[in-house]
Amino acid sequence: MQLKLMHSVRHHHLFEFCKLVFLKKSFKINEAELAAKVLISSDLRGIDSHGVARLSGYLRLINEGRVNPKPNIKIKKEMLSTCTLDGDAGLGLVVGPKAMEIAIEKAKITGSGQVSVMNSNHFGIAAYHALLATEQNLIGCSMTNASPLVAPTFGKEAMLGTNPICYAFPSKNEPIVVDMATSAAANGKLQIAQRSDKEIPSGWAQDSHGNDSKNPHILKDNGQLLPLGSSRNLGSHKGYGLAASVDIFSGVLSGANFGPWVPPFVSFKEPLKNPPGKGIGHFFGAFSIQGFCEEKDYFSNIDLWTKRFKQTKAINPENPVLIPGEPEHKTFQKRSIEGIPLNQKVLEDLLNIADQSNISAKDFF
Amino acid sequence: MQLKLMHSVRHHHLFEFCKLVFLKKSFKINEAELAAKVLISSDLRGIDSHGVARLSGYLRLINEGRVNPKPNIKIKKEMLSTCTLDGDAGLGLVVGPKAMEIAIEKAKITGSGQVSVMNSNHFGIAAYHALLATEQNLIGCSMTNASPLVAPTFGKEAMLGTNPICYAFPSKNEPIVVDMATSAAANGKLQIAQRSDKEIPSGWAQDSHGNDSKNPHILKDNGQLLPLGSSRNLGSHKGYGLAASVDIFSGVLSGANFGPWVPPFVSFKEPLKNPPGKGIGHFFGAFSIQGFCEEKDYFSNIDLWTKRFKQTKAINPENPVLIPGEPEHKTFQKRSIEGIPLNQKVLEDLLNIADQSNISAKDFF
Repeated sequence: MQLKLMHSVRHHHLFEFCKLVFLKKSFKINEAELAAKVLISSDLRGIDSHGVARLSGYLRLINEGRVNPKPNIKIKKEMLSTCTLDGDAGLGLVVGPKAMEIAIEKAKITGSGQVSVMNSNHFGIAAYHALLATEQNLIGCSMTNASPLVAPTFGKEAMLGTNPICYAFPSKNEPIVVDMATSAAANGKLQIAQRSDKEIPSGWAQDSHGNDSKNPHILKDNGQLLPLGSSRNLGSHKGYGLAASVDIFSGVLSGANFGPWVPPFVSFKEPLKNPPGKGIGHFFGAFSIQGFCEEKDYFSNIDLWTKRFKQTKAINPENPVLIPGEPEHKTFQKRSIEGIPLNQKVLEDLLNIADQSNISAKDFF
Repeated sequence: MQLKLMHSVRHHHLFEFCKLVFLKKSFKINEAELAAKVLISSDLRGIDSHGVARLSGYLRLINEGRVNPKPNIKIKKEMLSTCTLDGDAGLGLVVGPKAMEIAIEKAKITGSGQVSVMNSNHFGIAAYHALLATEQNLIGCSMTNASPLVAPTFGKEAMLGTNPICYAFPSKNEPIVVDMATSAAANGKLQIAQRSDKEIPSGWAQDSHGNDSKNPHILKDNGQLLPLGSSRNLGSHKGYGLAASVDIFSGVLSGANFGPWVPPFVSFKEPLKNPPGKGIGHFFGAFSIQGFCEEKDYFSNIDLWTKRFKQTKAINPENPVLIPGEPEHKTFQKRSIEGIPLNQKVLEDLLNIADQSNISAKDFF
């Protein structure tokens, strides 16, 4: 098989490949499908950093026993509209969607459902989970804490993850999706700059002394990412506050780890000894439209909202104001038809995985 | 009475004064007390822009019939853990706490309560409402849309308010409170710069063409505030996405106005004709700790969280990392004892109000 710089693969081929890989790691069939689906959804939406590019990382965590391929996921504490789930060290790609389904069921019964999760692992893109709600005409919310990379305002120590928040709102057409790291830039953006050794903008990261840094490799030198807002003057305490809120909802409330104790995603970094909780934590919310208003009123309002925001006077008419989630939705439509482009590094990674798993790569790529 | 540059007034005197003013505007007694309490809480926390400095603005809206002093607040739509409240054009200072009380009641029964509000007005500081939950050991969340001042990323038109979000987490000691406008800077910060004609930092506002502006008066010249993140490079699309989410939860879902239709707070600006909804909108959430975990586990975790974050390595040891809400809590403690300092402009405003309301100012100040 000849490697090209960008090799395009049909999404259902990539799905079948990932599913088979997870099956070989002794996942149950429906959980292998779920994990594969979450990964591919990220590539389809153009969030390449969170898709199949991470498969090898997940496998390393499974191989080292830090991820349980056959988790016994169960409810730890529950009330009518809430609960906490124990993910039993399963992959967040599997635990997350199950938690969201419970939130949705609770929302159908009581109007809203709020589920915190402990003892989980990386859950892929936040949007996948929140979009499970919009598929059934509910509003969805998802967040997760993550291993520490971000310094609080005035600090020079990584205390918080990039702790993303996603809100997804259903609409007659495409949903409105806000899916954002609470840091100024996601770590994936730094990784892209690292590959080409390109300077990063001022305001993304600082060095170990707390000075602004344009070095894309600065995190390896004890630097940290900056919270959304970048500097105190421009509101970095707000990004810090948001990341802290995500950490408390996901970690403190659920019994997962929080702050600097959240275990690292990369297998070459060891988790801290004697952590206060188990695994990483997530938080999910589902809101039934009917718990608040008539569905027809909501859908006509959200339609008007979208139309009016698309008409916002643009600074440059060739660069119009976008509806949150619009670029990802366009990429999703394009890649659903044209396939998912894989860069050479990711393709080599997948071929290695195929080799190690005794899977015939040419059946898929 | 001689005017000093900073005149300090005991908070309960200020409370009694505001209460009497609202009573003279034919508020019911418990609602006059509530409105006064919300205002004073803002001054006590050091958020001077949202306290008694706004009293004259509220009164003008009442005088012009845009705020109903005797609202008949009622539930419009309800499920077990959710509802929408119709504020009947009442003051948000009155409608907000009532909505939060309902969210708390629902959380006690089902684990969480989520309440959207339509047909309301300005609700003061977001933190007041969220803190009602922490007083009863619940997590509180509050948000509101507001009249348009902020341009979406790539836009040069005010489409969103500064749409604040507050999360308040109970703790054995002081609660952790994240209370933030979703713009890079709150409008109050521009107003302070306007008084002294001082340049504002780059990244707070833009002129009518979408160019960054340091002119503190630029909003009067068709300029706009920038979303948190300030520029596309530093994540302004995230601030825009957050403000949009607040707008949809508060306005679209409740049946209030949204986007550019949210009515202005200042009485000299007319609301737009034929708006899609009624008044402004809020959204409140309450989360019972017991819906997720044992209270003792939560309180020991949040204590550890706070201690560990206070120990974050600081860039400058004289400027330590703060816990969200810590500065406001310190101001609250100080002003509770020493009184609330009023600047000359605000004091003159209050004396005018006293005159017009036939209240003897010297009984209070």
